[in-house]
Amino acid sequence: MATAGEVITCKAAVAYEPNKPLVIEDVQVAPPQAGEVRVKILFTALCHTDAYTWSGKDPEGLFPCILGHEAAGYAECKECKFCKSGKTNLCGKVRMATGAGIMMNDRKSRFSINGKPIYHFMGTSTFSQYTVVHDVSVAKVDPQAPLDKVCLLGCGVPTGLGAVWNTAKVEPGAIVAIFGLGTVGLAVAEGAKSAGASRIIGVDVDNKKFDIAKNFGVTEFVNPKDYDKPIQQVLVDLTDGGVDYSFECIGNVSVMRAALECCHKGWGTSVIIGVAASGQEISTRPFQLVTGRVWKGIAFGGFKSRSQVPWLVDKYMKKEIKIDEYITHNLTLGEINKAFDLMHEGGCLRCVLKMHE
Amino acid sequence: MATAGEVITCKAAVAYEPNKPLVIEDVQVAPPQAGEVRVKILFTALCHTDAYTWSGKDPEGLFPCILGHEAAGYAECKECKFCKSGKTNLCGKVRMATGAGIMMNDRKSRFSINGKPIYHFMGTSTFSQYTVVHDVSVAKVDPQAPLDKVCLLGCGVPTGLGAVWNTAKVEPGAIVAIFGLGTVGLAVAEGAKSAGASRIIGVDVDNKKFDIAKNFGVTEFVNPKDYDKPIQQVLVDLTDGGVDYSFECIGNVSVMRAALECCHKGWGTSVIIGVAASGQEISTRPFQLVTGRVWKGIAFGGFKSRSQVPWLVDKYMKKEIKIDEYITHNLTLGEINKAFDLMHEGGCLRCVLKMHE
Ligand SMILES: [Zn+2]
Ligand SMILES: [Zn+2]
Ligand SMILES: [Zn+2]
Ligand SMILES: [Zn+2]
Repeated sequence: MATAGEVITCKAAVAYEPNKPLVIEDVQVAPPQAGEVRVKILFTALCHTDAYTWSGKDPEGLFPCILGHEAAGYAECKECKFCKSGKTNLCGKVRMATGAGIMMNDRKSRFSINGKPIYHFMGTSTFSQYTVVHDVSVAKVDPQAPLDKVCLLGCGVPTGLGAVWNTAKVEPGAIVAIFGLGTVGLAVAEGAKSAGASRIIGVDVDNKKFDIAKNFGVTEFVNPKDYDKPIQQVLVDLTDGGVDYSFECIGNVSVMRAALECCHKGWGTSVIIGVAASGQEISTRPFQLVTGRVWKGIAFGGFKSRSQVPWLVDKYMKKEIKIDEYITHNLTLGEINKAFDLMHEGGCLRCVLKMHE
Repeated sequence: MATAGEVITCKAAVAYEPNKPLVIEDVQVAPPQAGEVRVKILFTALCHTDAYTWSGKDPEGLFPCILGHEAAGYAECKECKFCKSGKTNLCGKVRMATGAGIMMNDRKSRFSINGKPIYHFMGTSTFSQYTVVHDVSVAKVDPQAPLDKVCLLGCGVPTGLGAVWNTAKVEPGAIVAIFGLGTVGLAVAEGAKSAGASRIIGVDVDNKKFDIAKNFGVTEFVNPKDYDKPIQQVLVDLTDGGVDYSFECIGNVSVMRAALECCHKGWGTSVIIGVAASGQEISTRPFQLVTGRVWKGIAFGGFKSRSQVPWLVDKYMKKEIKIDEYITHNLTLGEINKAFDLMHEGGCLRCVLKMHE
C-alpha cells in the first residue's frame, strides 16, 4: 500500500474529557509496529460501553482518547493460558496494554495530534478513519459481507447470543427472563428462541419496547412499574416457581439480584451481561445459591473473536441470525455526538456510523 | 412387629429452648400414618446444622423439638417437579411439612410427652430411639453395613464429596482451595483427591488441622492469620492467577466472598457449602462474574438420597470412600450435651451416639 510505513492523517472523534462533546479532529495515525495491524474503519456502531467510559464513570478510562469498539473484535492470541484453556474467551496477551490505552510493543499510543499522544480505547478505537490494533484482535471475515451491517458483530449482538448459547446453554422448552430490552437483551431473546425456549419473558420499564421485542422472540412482557411486589416475586408467581434462565442486560446491581432471585430453586441459572458502574456490588442471601441457583457472568458472549466472529458473519450471510433489525439509525462520523444522544432515547437500538464520506 | 399400631415410649433428647441443655426424656412416638415409616435409630452423628438450630439462630427453628439428622437421608419422592428434573437433589414433596416440624398426612407431630406435642426437625429427628419419617426420606442400604459408621452418610461426608463430584465436577489436574477443614472440608479434599486434583490447598485458622487434613488429600496449608493481605490475594499469588475450584465449608459470608475471588479469571468456580447465619448476605463486584467466575452452592452434595445413599454405602463397603477416619468420638444418647461441647473443640470431627444401651 502507498501508505505503508507512513503516518496517515485522518479524521477521528476525540474525547478530550469526560462528558464533553467529542471533537472531530485531524489525527496522525503512526504505522503499525511488530504484531500490529493498521486498519481502515469503514463503519462502526456505538455501544453503551463507549458511553460509559465517555461518562467518566469508568475508573480505567483515560483521556484524551478515541473511543469505539463495535467494528472490531476482542483479542484472541491462541497462545496464552486463557486461550489455551478451552474454558474462556478472555485473552491475557494484550490486556495490560489495552487497559492502559497503549500498544504492547513500545507501550506507546499510535494516535497523536501535532505530536501530542491520544490514548487508544479497548485496543480498538474505531471512532477513527484509521486505527492500529494488535494482530491478535483482528478477525478475517467473508469479503462479501456488508461491513455496514457486520460491524455489529463486534460487540452487542454476539454478547447476547453467546450468553444464551455458550454460557447458559439454554435447552428446548426452557423458561427465560430477560432484564433490559436493548440490543443485547434482544439478542438474548433471539438466541433463546433459536435454542427452543418455550417462554421468553421480557422485563423492561418502557412499554414501547414490547412491540420491537416480539420480533426477536419475546413472548411475554412484564413492566416492574405495574406491580407493587418485587419483580423477582412477580416472575416466580408467573412461572410456578421461577425461570430456568435469566439474563441481566442493563448493568444495574439491584436488577442483577432480582435476576438471580427469580430463578427456579434447584437449577435456575442467572447470567450477568450488563456492566455495572465501578465500585457497585451485587449481593444476595447465600441460601439462594445453596438451594441450587447458579450465578454467572460473561463478556462478549463467551465467543472467541478470531475463531468465532467469522462463523457469526457466515451465519448472518445464511440469514440464520439477524443484524439489520438492530440498526435503527445510520449517521456519519461527523454526527457522532447526535448518535450518542440517540442512544439514550427508547427508540434507538444501534446507530451505525459511516466513517468516510 | 409387636409394636405395630402402638405408641412406643422411648428415650429422646428434647430441645426445649434455644441454647439450653438438651433433656433426655421419655417420649411417646405415635404409630406411622399413610406414607410414613417409624424407624428405630441405632446410631446417629451430630452435625453443625443441629447446633445451628439449637443455638436459636435458625429462623425456621421450632421448640420444643427433637434434633438430629445425620442418620437418615433427605427426601426424594421421585414424583415432584424437582425429582423429575434430573437437575437437582432437592425434593419438594414433604418440604412444607418438614420445614414446619410436622408430618404431611395430618400436619401434626408424631412425638409427644404426656400429650404435649414435640416438633420434628428436618423430617428426621434422629436424637430419639424411635422416630417417624416420611417414606420418601428412607433409603434401603446394604444390610451388612455397620450402622455406627454409615450413619455419617446422612449428611456431612456426602455433602463434601458431592460438592466436588456433582456440583463442581473437578477434573484431573485442577487446583482446589478448601475453606474450613472440618468434616465437610475434609470430605471435599477426599473427593478432590479422587477426582485427580493436582493441588489441594486447605485454608483454616487452626494450624493443628493440617496434620489431619493431609490424610484426606490436602497438599498445602494456608493460615490466613499468617498474612497481612486478604486471603484471596494470597491464593491468587500462590497459584499464578487463582484456583480452578474453591469450596466454602464454614458458613461465613466474608469467607464466601474470598472463596469466589480467589478463583481464576475465565473459569474459576466457587461452591458454597457452609450454612450462613440467617439474614447475612454475600456480595462481590459483578466484574468478578462478568470475567468468567461462577458462583454456586449445594445442599447434601447434590446427591439424591434414596437413589444414591445406598451407592455411597456400597462405595464405603468397597473401601472406596472413608468414613471411620471422620469419627473422632463415640458416646451414648445420655451424653449428648457433652457431644455438642466436643463439636466446638478443634480435635472433634464427628461424634457418633449409640442410641440404645
Ligand atoms: Zn490469548
Ligand atoms: Zn460494546
Ligand atoms: Zn420429590
Ligand atoms: Zn448436617
